[in-house]
Amino acid sequence: MTVPLELPKAIDLSHHLNSIARNRFASPLKDILNYMAQPGMISLAGGLPHPSLFPFAEANVSVYPANADLKHGVVPSVDEQLTLTIPKTAPVKGALDLNSVQQYGHSLGLPELRAWLHQFTRDVFSPAYSNFEILLHEGNTAAWAKVCRLLLDAGDYILLEEFSFPSSFGPWVPEGCKGVPVKMDAHGLRADDLERVLSEWETTHPGERRPRVLYTIPQGQNPAGLSMPGDRMRDVYEVCRKYDIIIVDDGPYSCLTFREFEITPEPVVPVAETGEQFRKTLATSFLKYDYEGRVIRLDSFSKTLAPGSRLGYFVANPIFIERLLRATEVESQTPSGWSMAIVSQLLHTWGQDGYLQWLSNLRDSYELRRNIMCAALAKRFVALPADKYASAVPGCEGVALYPRGTDPATIKPDQAPVASFVPPAGGMFLWIKFYLSGAPRFRELQTAQHEDPENAFMGEMWKALADNLVLLTPGSYYVVPASSGKATTSQRGAEPAVGHFRFAFSYNDRVEMEEGIRRVEEVASKLWGY
Amino acid sequence: MTVPLELPKAIDLSHHLNSIARNRFASPLKDILNYMAQPGMISLAGGLPHPSLFPFAEANVSVYPANADLKHGVVPSVDEQLTLTIPKTAPVKGALDLNSVQQYGHSLGLPELRAWLHQFTRDVFSPAYSNFEILLHEGNTAAWAKVCRLLLDAGDYILLEEFSFPSSFGPWVPEGCKGVPVKMDAHGLRADDLERVLSEWETTHPGERRPRVLYTIPQGQNPAGLSMPGDRMRDVYEVCRKYDIIIVDDGPYSCLTFREFEITPEPVVPVAETGEQFRKTLATSFLKYDYEGRVIRLDSFSKTLAPGSRLGYFVANPIFIERLLRATEVESQTPSGWSMAIVSQLLHTWGQDGYLQWLSNLRDSYELRRNIMCAALAKRFVALPADKYASAVPGCEGVALYPRGTDPATIKPDQAPVASFVPPAGGMFLWIKFYLSGAPRFRELQTAQHEDPENAFMGEMWKALADNLVLLTPGSYYVVPASSGKATTSQRGAEPAVGHFRFAFSYNDRVEMEEGIRRVEEVASKLWGY
Repeated sequence: MTVPLELPKAIDLSHHLNSIARNRFASPLKDILNYMAQPGMISLAGGLPHPSLFPFAEANVSVYPANADLKHGVVPSVDEQLTLTIPKTAPVKGALDLNSVQQYGHSLGLPELRAWLHQFTRDVFSPAYSNFEILLHEGNTAAWAKVCRLLLDAGDYILLEEFSFPSSFGPWVPEGCKGVPVKMDAHGLRADDLERVLSEWETTHPGERRPRVLYTIPQGQNPAGLSMPGDRMRDVYEVCRKYDIIIVDDGPYSCLTFREFEITPEPVVPVAETGEQFRKTLATSFLKYDYEGRVIRLDSFSKTLAPGSRLGYFVANPIFIERLLRATEVESQTPSGWSMAIVSQLLHTWGQDGYLQWLSNLRDSYELRRNIMCAALAKRFVALPADKYASAVPGCEGVALYPRGTDPATIKPDQAPVASFVPPAGGMFLWIKFYLSGAPRFRELQTAQHEDPENAFMGEMWKALADNLVLLTPGSYYVVPASSGKATTSQRGAEPAVGHFRFAFSYNDRVEMEEGIRRVEEVASKLWGY
Repeated sequence: MTVPLELPKAIDLSHHLNSIARNRFASPLKDILNYMAQPGMISLAGGLPHPSLFPFAEANVSVYPANADLKHGVVPSVDEQLTLTIPKTAPVKGALDLNSVQQYGHSLGLPELRAWLHQFTRDVFSPAYSNFEILLHEGNTAAWAKVCRLLLDAGDYILLEEFSFPSSFGPWVPEGCKGVPVKMDAHGLRADDLERVLSEWETTHPGERRPRVLYTIPQGQNPAGLSMPGDRMRDVYEVCRKYDIIIVDDGPYSCLTFREFEITPEPVVPVAETGEQFRKTLATSFLKYDYEGRVIRLDSFSKTLAPGSRLGYFVANPIFIERLLRATEVESQTPSGWSMAIVSQLLHTWGQDGYLQWLSNLRDSYELRRNIMCAALAKRFVALPADKYASAVPGCEGVALYPRGTDPATIKPDQAPVASFVPPAGGMFLWIKFYLSGAPRFRELQTAQHEDPENAFMGEMWKALADNLVLLTPGSYYVVPASSGKATTSQRGAEPAVGHFRFAFSYNDRVEMEEGIRRVEEVASKLWGY
């Protein structure tokens, strides 16, 4: 894929760097590197251990072929597997060897892997500016912590989806930063709500510094399973541009974006695509709309290969990459040489087409899992399109779940279902909203003027589910910490009389998912009294 | 080795935690873990990708036998090599498998490896308190950055050896912290100077918070190659106890501590020892004297196996480990699963005795390299014991280097040699002090009242060396940044009319080292005019 020559360069966004990032300096030792290349030079300056004293003689890793179709549990035979070999010393100059990858290396990361990823990013994510750069990191958790230390000052406000991944709060809450939740709809983060938050900022937060960072998981959002279509990302980008916001695009699920969902009694088995078909339909990332270099994309192999490699990469403008590199030099040096070498060899062996085929098939596997879980819900509840049956229930989108045995013809448009969900458009999670006013116990808590009846009821429901041997993640875990104290549902201005659970469809097999959903429905039937 | 039952427990040192460390919270998702063990439970709560979708089928790593003697460049044949195999799924329950090590894991790190290291630490480093704990990390660079975020506040002062590893300044200089240099002698950091700095603090730094952290590389110090004997460590520990200082013991070279050095024309080849002999003579670490739990030891496999694994471990009291764990959960999760699995299998395969034998032989290899470099100096200069020939030259210790051809009988005790060095007692570096008053150009700079003649001369000498095709690391790189601006030699109160270069003996072969030293002496002879 050729890139039009007229792509602009990134603009200067260095005013976003915090004082720590500005104060970082290059190691003076690196200055000497320039002299090392001189012919005949003997350097006694470095401090490298001698590779002949590394005890590792050769590594061989057997891997699946790129076109392995794993969705039915049939694993490739040993004959079909490929072997990645990393010898102690390179047989030809430039080939990967253990002596190099086990040595101290440049903090940008293994050059062969960076080059591969640069091409992949250009071909698949197509940033709208020309001079983006790649820096390897140790997974998106480490990457986000590095970005916090790049951009945030103590006490800053950060924009996030109204429900977000709790570990992402970890780096900034202890620094005294505060989250600003932005509402979502079925297409993810709402550009209009982002505009509202920012345009009203001086009124709602007089004297407080306006947020300068948006943290978002645009595809397969955790916990909500939502994916932002292209025009939504473009609209969000333009709001961010207007208010000079840096977008941190956390993208572990970008390549796990699913096709449309239909309510069916039996799970639909996804139709395989070629890697090229997959590439064309990929939901992509904010990079595609980023003509100024204001997106810092965090990409990772945790969901596409395996989390244990602790390996991923930043895509960002050269100024941010340079400052992240300075931090990397003194905070982590490089990701593991084992991880970089094995992943690099795997990607070079598969090739870009092969990796796209792998991603396409992987997506199918998770899409099938989504379909299994959704079909299990449709089997236990009466599942109907919300826009048709619950059109007058505020905020009810996607699929509405009514008590088993409900005759659709009897449903009134303003009658709250037991629950509803937007079918996951990517990722690993189903986010189910329960409508609590149908549950006698919830009404009891309301009548008793409990200070947070939603939270109390959902806590009781979580316990009832655990007692019925099914574990879900409480929606409260994903509430953005907007202030130092705990806020009640009404204090947060959150939607009243609803509560959420996150259901993961990534790990369990079909039998477990179906039995788990059966147990959930069993508890719901008791609590909703049907 | 049995541990006496009467070892005390760590005292409560939680008042040293900074506000960020105190504010860290456990991920709420972890609460659910307690419920997962219940029989029959179906958990849809986790967010794990499915391991059947990891493309890694098996890893085989060929390694050297533990008793490989590599100092003469003879590498073990393929027949002698061992193979570490990590299958996709464990053949027996509890065995290491790729599905587990490539999955998200507990942030403490791989349990088998932690257990091995706990036993190793107990048997080899023998902490003087009972309840020390182990937390894996991504190498000592990452570990020190984590400790800075655990203990330091912006603007704090940190105690360090007067010359220290420049990358260790990286995490705290941008935070506005300042270093406090503590003088060294031939046995490393001086306890009496530490006592002086701390006892005079209120006078020398009125109104400023006293330092609470000592960062030290007690064995094979970088750059000075010094190792602290046991009684020196005990004395330093007691001063730290008196002033309530936390000792950060950066220990990558702890197992590379050498035997006594003798000046010989030919390099002495070290005599091999058994692992058990090695263990008994090991210089150990501050842990051995730590009966309160005020030492945070940073250990690493970078120098003992290979740097590319980016793997090491903290040894510290339970309160610090718990807070470091909270940080690890949101800043890095775990080290690479590849690194943890391969190193763990290697250590379990070798066993403790085997690893000690490996370390002993490795130490011999680096000790031989030290001897080669020192013999090369003795060949090019006239090398004589400083205590005998330069007894009246202030600060001249170890080996004094005089111009070639010098007749020892003519040397006066107050006559400065060209250079001197304390023979490295461990690690990878030789730290050579040059006596500049013998160099005409230096006297010229002094006469011209240059603001920093030492620094100017050493810069010119570095350039002359580079022009003569030998690279050394300038001593100025290792000067502790004690204030925000650049200070001259006299402003720093540093020893006048001397300058240092660091010579690494870890990487080059004998021919290169000897030729490099020849080139150094050639430049010295010109600059000193002999």
